[in-house]
Amino acid sequence: MSKASGIKKVVLAYSGGLDTSVILRWLQEHYGCEVVTFTADLGQGEELEPARRKAESLGVKEIFVEDLRETFVKDYVFPMFRANTVYEGQYLLGTSIARPLISKRQIEIAEAVGADAVAHGATGKGNDQVRFELSYYALKPDVKVIAPWREWDLTSRTKLLDFAEKNQIPVTKDKRGEAPFSVDANLLHSSSEGKILEDPSLPPDEIVFQRTISPEAAPDKATEITIDFKHGDPVAINGEALSPATLLARLNELGKANGIGRLDIVENRFVGMKSRGIYETPGGTILLQAHRSMESITLDREAAHLKDSIMPRYAELIYNGLWFSPERHMLQALIDSSQQHVNGRVRLKLYKGNVICVGRESPDSLYDARVVTFEDDEGAYNQVDAQGFIRLNALRLRLGANKGRRGGTP
Amino acid sequence: MSKASGIKKVVLAYSGGLDTSVILRWLQEHYGCEVVTFTADLGQGEELEPARRKAESLGVKEIFVEDLRETFVKDYVFPMFRANTVYEGQYLLGTSIARPLISKRQIEIAEAVGADAVAHGATGKGNDQVRFELSYYALKPDVKVIAPWREWDLTSRTKLLDFAEKNQIPVTKDKRGEAPFSVDANLLHSSSEGKILEDPSLPPDEIVFQRTISPEAAPDKATEITIDFKHGDPVAINGEALSPATLLARLNELGKANGIGRLDIVENRFVGMKSRGIYETPGGTILLQAHRSMESITLDREAAHLKDSIMPRYAELIYNGLWFSPERHMLQALIDSSQQHVNGRVRLKLYKGNVICVGRESPDSLYDARVVTFEDDEGAYNQVDAQGFIRLNALRLRLGANKGRRGGTP
Amino acid sequence: MSKASGIKKVVLAYSGGLDTSVILRWLQEHYGCEVVTFTADLGQGEELEPARRKAESLGVKEIFVEDLRETFVKDYVFPMFRANTVYEGQYLLGTSIARPLISKRQIEIAEAVGADAVAHGATGKGNDQVRFELSYYALKPDVKVIAPWREWDLTSRTKLLDFAEKNQIPVTKDKRGEAPFSVDANLLHSSSEGKILEDPSLPPDEIVFQRTISPEAAPDKATEITIDFKHGDPVAINGEALSPATLLARLNELGKANGIGRLDIVENRFVGMKSRGIYETPGGTILLQAHRSMESITLDREAAHLKDSIMPRYAELIYNGLWFSPERHMLQALIDSSQQHVNGRVRLKLYKGNVICVGRESPDSLYDARVVTFEDDEGAYNQVDAQGFIRLNALRLRLGANKGRRGGTP
Amino acid sequence: MSKASGIKKVVLAYSGGLDTSVILRWLQEHYGCEVVTFTADLGQGEELEPARRKAESLGVKEIFVEDLRETFVKDYVFPMFRANTVYEGQYLLGTSIARPLISKRQIEIAEAVGADAVAHGATGKGNDQVRFELSYYALKPDVKVIAPWREWDLTSRTKLLDFAEKNQIPVTKDKRGEAPFSVDANLLHSSSEGKILEDPSLPPDEIVFQRTISPEAAPDKATEITIDFKHGDPVAINGEALSPATLLARLNELGKANGIGRLDIVENRFVGMKSRGIYETPGGTILLQAHRSMESITLDREAAHLKDSIMPRYAELIYNGLWFSPERHMLQALIDSSQQHVNGRVRLKLYKGNVICVGRESPDSLYDARVVTFEDDEGAYNQVDAQGFIRLNALRLRLGANKGRRGGTP
Repeated sequence: MSKASGIKKVVLAYSGGLDTSVILRWLQEHYGCEVVTFTADLGQGEELEPARRKAESLGVKEIFVEDLRETFVKDYVFPMFRANTVYEGQYLLGTSIARPLISKRQIEIAEAVGADAVAHGATGKGNDQVRFELSYYALKPDVKVIAPWREWDLTSRTKLLDFAEKNQIPVTKDKRGEAPFSVDANLLHSSSEGKILEDPSLPPDEIVFQRTISPEAAPDKATEITIDFKHGDPVAINGEALSPATLLARLNELGKANGIGRLDIVENRFVGMKSRGIYETPGGTILLQAHRSMESITLDREAAHLKDSIMPRYAELIYNGLWFSPERHMLQALIDSSQQHVNGRVRLKLYKGNVICVGRESPDSLYDARVVTFEDDEGAYNQVDAQGFIRLNALRLRLGANKGRRGGTP
Repeated sequence: MSKASGIKKVVLAYSGGLDTSVILRWLQEHYGCEVVTFTADLGQGEELEPARRKAESLGVKEIFVEDLRETFVKDYVFPMFRANTVYEGQYLLGTSIARPLISKRQIEIAEAVGADAVAHGATGKGNDQVRFELSYYALKPDVKVIAPWREWDLTSRTKLLDFAEKNQIPVTKDKRGEAPFSVDANLLHSSSEGKILEDPSLPPDEIVFQRTISPEAAPDKATEITIDFKHGDPVAINGEALSPATLLARLNELGKANGIGRLDIVENRFVGMKSRGIYETPGGTILLQAHRSMESITLDREAAHLKDSIMPRYAELIYNGLWFSPERHMLQALIDSSQQHVNGRVRLKLYKGNVICVGRESPDSLYDARVVTFEDDEGAYNQVDAQGFIRLNALRLRLGANKGRRGGTP
Repeated sequence: MSKASGIKKVVLAYSGGLDTSVILRWLQEHYGCEVVTFTADLGQGEELEPARRKAESLGVKEIFVEDLRETFVKDYVFPMFRANTVYEGQYLLGTSIARPLISKRQIEIAEAVGADAVAHGATGKGNDQVRFELSYYALKPDVKVIAPWREWDLTSRTKLLDFAEKNQIPVTKDKRGEAPFSVDANLLHSSSEGKILEDPSLPPDEIVFQRTISPEAAPDKATEITIDFKHGDPVAINGEALSPATLLARLNELGKANGIGRLDIVENRFVGMKSRGIYETPGGTILLQAHRSMESITLDREAAHLKDSIMPRYAELIYNGLWFSPERHMLQALIDSSQQHVNGRVRLKLYKGNVICVGRESPDSLYDARVVTFEDDEGAYNQVDAQGFIRLNALRLRLGANKGRRGGTP
Repeated sequence: MSKASGIKKVVLAYSGGLDTSVILRWLQEHYGCEVVTFTADLGQGEELEPARRKAESLGVKEIFVEDLRETFVKDYVFPMFRANTVYEGQYLLGTSIARPLISKRQIEIAEAVGADAVAHGATGKGNDQVRFELSYYALKPDVKVIAPWREWDLTSRTKLLDFAEKNQIPVTKDKRGEAPFSVDANLLHSSSEGKILEDPSLPPDEIVFQRTISPEAAPDKATEITIDFKHGDPVAINGEALSPATLLARLNELGKANGIGRLDIVENRFVGMKSRGIYETPGGTILLQAHRSMESITLDREAAHLKDSIMPRYAELIYNGLWFSPERHMLQALIDSSQQHVNGRVRLKLYKGNVICVGRESPDSLYDARVVTFEDDEGAYNQVDAQGFIRLNALRLRLGANKGRRGGTP
């Protein structure tokens, strides 16, 4: 295979864990090629230096370790939240939104080091393989893609451990036994799935949760905060200006402490099956509510409705791995063009899993108490106008009813 | 006016309260016509007999008092919930969905008693006038519509009370002073708006809430329930089969007791301005989560996504008062055609404002643990297929990138 | 392979031509299985009996030859035309709509004869393989699918002819040389693509066209016809009631004679590349214009706009082979629910490629001359209503402009 | 009225014709205010100087006469054509797209001359009043709008002529009798409606047409042209670079000479009724076909489909007069972001009403003959990939069919 494939140098998305370490060695052996590792800090909450040392110990010469947290939040998470993006009504896309950035840096590194291939550690049943590879191809159409989990014969835990042992890959004790479920994490969320979580008729065990305490365990007293927005993005908490990643981290702490952001759903994968996932998105859950509340007073009605109408498609394509696609860029242009005046402050109460808006104000508010008031509006709104408005909106219905289509039957 | 208008008999949507009593008398005087009253129980939580007696005391000869709760829930609320309908991301449309039914019965009564006009007590700034009148016109295109609040000169509280006094309309003491906000209620929700609620930078006072206790006041221990669905509609709670209205009432109790279903939003009215509303939809909030969870294992992915994509439009037209319109009927046909297999049981935990799905099962489940499993799937899914799937999905992106459009730039 | 595959009996979509005859023999040899042939008349304009004799000569014992023209037009073509369906603004989907029916009968035959597999003659680059196979799987999820063009090594014309010769498959002289382009045909259209048509900067040669004469060659005098509709489907031409297939055949003649229905486009395939196709849809082109004209006076505005807004998605999924999918059924429910009153008569002028509506009338017409007239309308429409209509529609724009968003800037 | 209204100076959209001259005088009399006239050349094909002289003769002191043709085509027509915009499947929006520009200049003039009001000559039943006034309000929210046709009592032709006579407004002989239909024209199109055209069961008389000869009268020989595009806009005809208005004028000549661009439809007005219009859009009809053909080789599939899916909404809002709205700006951002690579040359054959694309080429073409070819593609496309692609796309359908939902029933 190695000769036939013609692959000389591959950039591997490398976590430093057992699985990608086995992949690293397998690539060296199976493809007989040089492996370059790329390890990114996207806020998953793990030290990166051990990954560097492990890569060195496995003979890797070119090792890239990068802190991408600010880029991740600024250029991926925040743009997505501008659309109040939710997949299938509930999922905040924490995993989906991280893959394009990893892929992008991987490809940039491949071009910098002259690699002809890239590899990832995603399995053959999931969405992540799609997200990685669609991004790779969109960014470097001639790249060769290696997806070991779809190719090799290490199809059981035992074989994997055997391979690790034979290749002097250290296996920590807690990795000997199989993990009871699989985890992905970054600054936006953590997800857990598989194994003990595969039966959707049963709730997840409390041990599954890593980013949040339970609503029951949260304080009996609410925490109140403010979030300031500029052009649709959050810029400050409680009046303190914060960088994107710092701000999201702060929201994560607040969410965690108040039992906010847990989600247990069955979702539809792009590859065709349903899967069950447990997600924790503490900061994102707060941010979604805050952004929507900010928009509620600053966005025009039809601007808001247009955004709502295209959101499911936008969410779907991010979920499917099409961040780097013409249609995502086009929808982003539409979304971003609406955020100029999404400025102001939202006040929120965080309480045992609840995120409750308790106030919003903005210099760009379109809410006009003078017009809406039950009191005398001094002519701001002429109630007589409503009659004409209604009568013309009703005209087509009346013409239909006159022709026997009572009650708006088509 | 009375002579010129030519109106002889009008059916008034009559609550028995001060405002519609004043309208009743004003119609008799101003239009010199006979007034027929129609008072419906939609679960607003008020006795109807006082309304009958008050109408009698005002000289009304034809009085209609009807309990429409089952019809309301079965033919209006449940069909709407089949679409997981939410207006502007948050509002469950509790007021909007009640208006078409009231209008429909009003028109049926008008035809039964030979009335040539109908009247309602909605103001000239709100959405309800639109909802009532679009329904009227769709059902009886030649009907004459009287909207006293847009016509008369009783434009202040003082004038209204003066008119009441002059006309021997009894004013209870608590109605002397002006209500601090305006309320609408039915079995699905209660809404409060206006006056003291007009500043969206301030939270509502606790006295505003009528249908729910606060999350803080709710029990420290979660309540667990099951809801059974058949063809997309809930049919039983904790295994006990219940009629639509009884079921919703039961959910309301459960929601109320657990601090569920409060909402404080700024929304966009069809008549063009933003308004601030406080809504309480305890049972509906539970039902929305339950229905979505039921669909998550029983609906095909594209069926679910298609529903999601048309939902904002469906919600918008219900909000706008277009229940009796061709487009609503058409969308309903699409929605209903998807619910055949939405059958099964959802288990929910209710806790201090949270509605958490902790299990779903169905004889029609499309979730297939055998396919999705991390374990050996015995050939149910061939991982090699993923490569072709990804490569063809990537083809257009690669062709674009080859022509200088890296990263999916359009 | 044959043993390993375990396939015992396969139903082949068999045209009787060289390619599917080679496939037939190859299946017998390669899979060692029994082959059942299915040959359908969908109006492609070829005799079916030669296919039967050829199948017999190749040792086939179970031969199915069926005239499906009426079913094709009634249950596939007409439902699709109810939506004014056009792919990418131009293509009338003549090939796409035939595949589901062929697949359906093939699967029904497979179940009737106890076959465990089906096979088709579509290539590995086109859409048809997708359309066939998605339909197969949707109808019989455990079916085995054989796509010889993706499997075998007969990858050149020479190898194919060699195989034919070795296997006593008669090759007519005109098939010795390679066809200069590939053709698919049925009662709705014929398509031509490939080889000499592969350069989209060049127009097709006149010899490509089989179903139409050129506009230039068409008569100098227009032909006028009427088409009558009932519930959205055409039922009569020039007052003569006709069965669906007979009606479409008649329209084809009329279109052909008047140079109507040629199309030369570059389209986007589901499998990811662009391709160039020459289509002739004489009757369909007339029908599209006729149906739209009929709807123009009988459909409510919002019903029509809703149909228009979902049409691109409906077209896309038919193009992609998803006729037998939940989303198509759901959209069909929406579409069909709108056609109840699409009744009446359309008058058309056919002239050298043009289809011009010169009159439409209907007992269900919503066009009301009394309302629209420039003359005195006797109160049918109150012009004063327009002011209120405009002012309330403008309200949000004015509120925005007041806050510095002049000209509707978001 | 004049005093009460408080209007001091009004800018009138003035054509110089009888109707707007009567309006001019009526404004002076009825409102007692100063009238400023604004006459624009949008390519309607009339001299403007007579309008100036007429205004002078009516005592107008501030007269604005402007040639807006280049602005009209560049900033309104071309942006709209980037979306392949068609209302209700057929109408190219020639009238709709002119109104925003007139309104914009009118408001700019109002601000320049210190006018507090604007007036137009559109009737109370049509769309144009809406288009003018929504634009006015969006650009100057406090402007006063005068719509004489909705206000005055000159409700018959006789009264209008009497008023003209009494006020020394010259009435040319041909205006004494009433025009048999109403006409609007600009560089994009001319429209005719009303009176003798009000019966949609009858074809229009040939005298109605002003911008085109009939297909029958067009030459027997086709005209072939090329159109070059840059970033989605046409920039040259037959290789000759032309300014926007010059280019459109040239296309109009070409279209006219070849009987192209006639349309006879019944459309749905925003104000609620159906109306019948005869449109002539010779150049626009050519441009639409050319632009679509250019996109067919230069746009990514999903970019094209996304544009197609939002187009009906975009068309609707232009038709409804919402050019100056947040939602139009947002959709325009999406559309414009797709046009960067819509560059190249389209070859068209114009023949007796037909616009036939006979070639398209582009340096940015995504059509890749190497991939699509029936011949050996040297590995550009791996046919084996199709199997995985199909199988994963089919997975959800198979899972559904396994649960009794054969044939994709929802």
